[in-house]
Amino acid sequence: MELIDALKWRYATKKMNGKKISDQDLNTIVEAAHLAPSSSGLQPFEIFVITDRDLLAKIQPIASGQSQITDCSALLVFAAWDNYSEEKIKSIFDYTLSERGLPADAMDAYRERLWAAYGSRDAEKNFEHAARQAYIAFGIAIAAAAELKIDSTPMEGFDNEKLDQLLDLPAKGLKSVTLLPLGYRDEENDWLVNLKKVRRPKESYIHYLS
Amino acid sequence: MELIDALKWRYATKKMNGKKISDQDLNTIVEAAHLAPSSSGLQPFEIFVITDRDLLAKIQPIASGQSQITDCSALLVFAAWDNYSEEKIKSIFDYTLSERGLPADAMDAYRERLWAAYGSRDAEKNFEHAARQAYIAFGIAIAAAAELKIDSTPMEGFDNEKLDQLLDLPAKGLKSVTLLPLGYRDEENDWLVNLKKVRRPKESYIHYLS
Repeated sequence: MELIDALKWRYATKKMNGKKISDQDLNTIVEAAHLAPSSSGLQPFEIFVITDRDLLAKIQPIASGQSQITDCSALLVFAAWDNYSEEKIKSIFDYTLSERGLPADAMDAYRERLWAAYGSRDAEKNFEHAARQAYIAFGIAIAAAAELKIDSTPMEGFDNEKLDQLLDLPAKGLKSVTLLPLGYRDEENDWLVNLKKVRRPKESYIHYLS
Repeated sequence: MELIDALKWRYATKKMNGKKISDQDLNTIVEAAHLAPSSSGLQPFEIFVITDRDLLAKIQPIASGQSQITDCSALLVFAAWDNYSEEKIKSIFDYTLSERGLPADAMDAYRERLWAAYGSRDAEKNFEHAARQAYIAFGIAIAAAAELKIDSTPMEGFDNEKLDQLLDLPAKGLKSVTLLPLGYRDEENDWLVNLKKVRRPKESYIHYLS
């Protein structure tokens, strides 16, 4: 399916039917998120792919009791770095240079400029920047799922701190930012499935300066 | 092209060749962004599609002199609401209910809960939330361009305040968050085009809890 048609087909699924998605499709969606671009290529977030039913049952009350958490096939949790650090940045630059067969010092000047900027900002500002990068991958994962005719529900409505504790994210230097249950719509029981998809009128939203 | 292959093909193009993309392709990319999901369907951002060469020439120095600004075919500017307001939220809910043929008060309780949350947060926090929604559309626009074999360069490195002034965004209640030049790679003159695409090793980035 062409992406534009997939985007018209998808919607924020409110009720899923519990059917499992194939491992191959799940891997494709995760790989699409992994391929998403990020500022300076740092990918300052991690993705948890949760299929453990007991863990999902524990997450559901943290996510306003939403049924998709337990009726999905897999839940993606996007968690952003709680701050940038010189060490984390250096390790990613080292890896990139090594993969590209370039000298280890080839990007020193750029890396130092980057750290001068990030190092002078507070943790909250840096976390917000990292969270935005996670949202690029989040958007791409939503698109990748739709292309495979897999339903998903973009979710911000959950108790971030409780989820962070449950997944031991503070110890990993991470904070949860968003959830994406993946599965299949339950057409008979989803109140949203037959409602018209509405977007703001283009004339108030898209401005052509030509 | 399948999305996953498109994501492997794309890269943050550093040099574009000035070739024009078709109006149809440009419209498809903009429509993909327009179809992106957003929190409560508010789409709290707007997109400027700039092809005016004089305006692009004025933007280039604001964007660190990057050549893609003037060598692209069109520049997308994503600009998020500087705050939420009860009035803006109501107007979007009214529109959605009317498009769906539902009573005007059908979502009053939900809308009031939403405003209770947004209305109690400061402008900076609300702007960050709006910016994250813009990043979902940004990610989807990048994917949509790649699927059409159109190059793009995700860009955060610009002087936001100067661009806001140039585009008169404060008067519109908007703040620029990110740029996306669209065009075609200049294969002979782009230093990045032949370097290996590198992403963080999956084992340190994706965690399966199954």
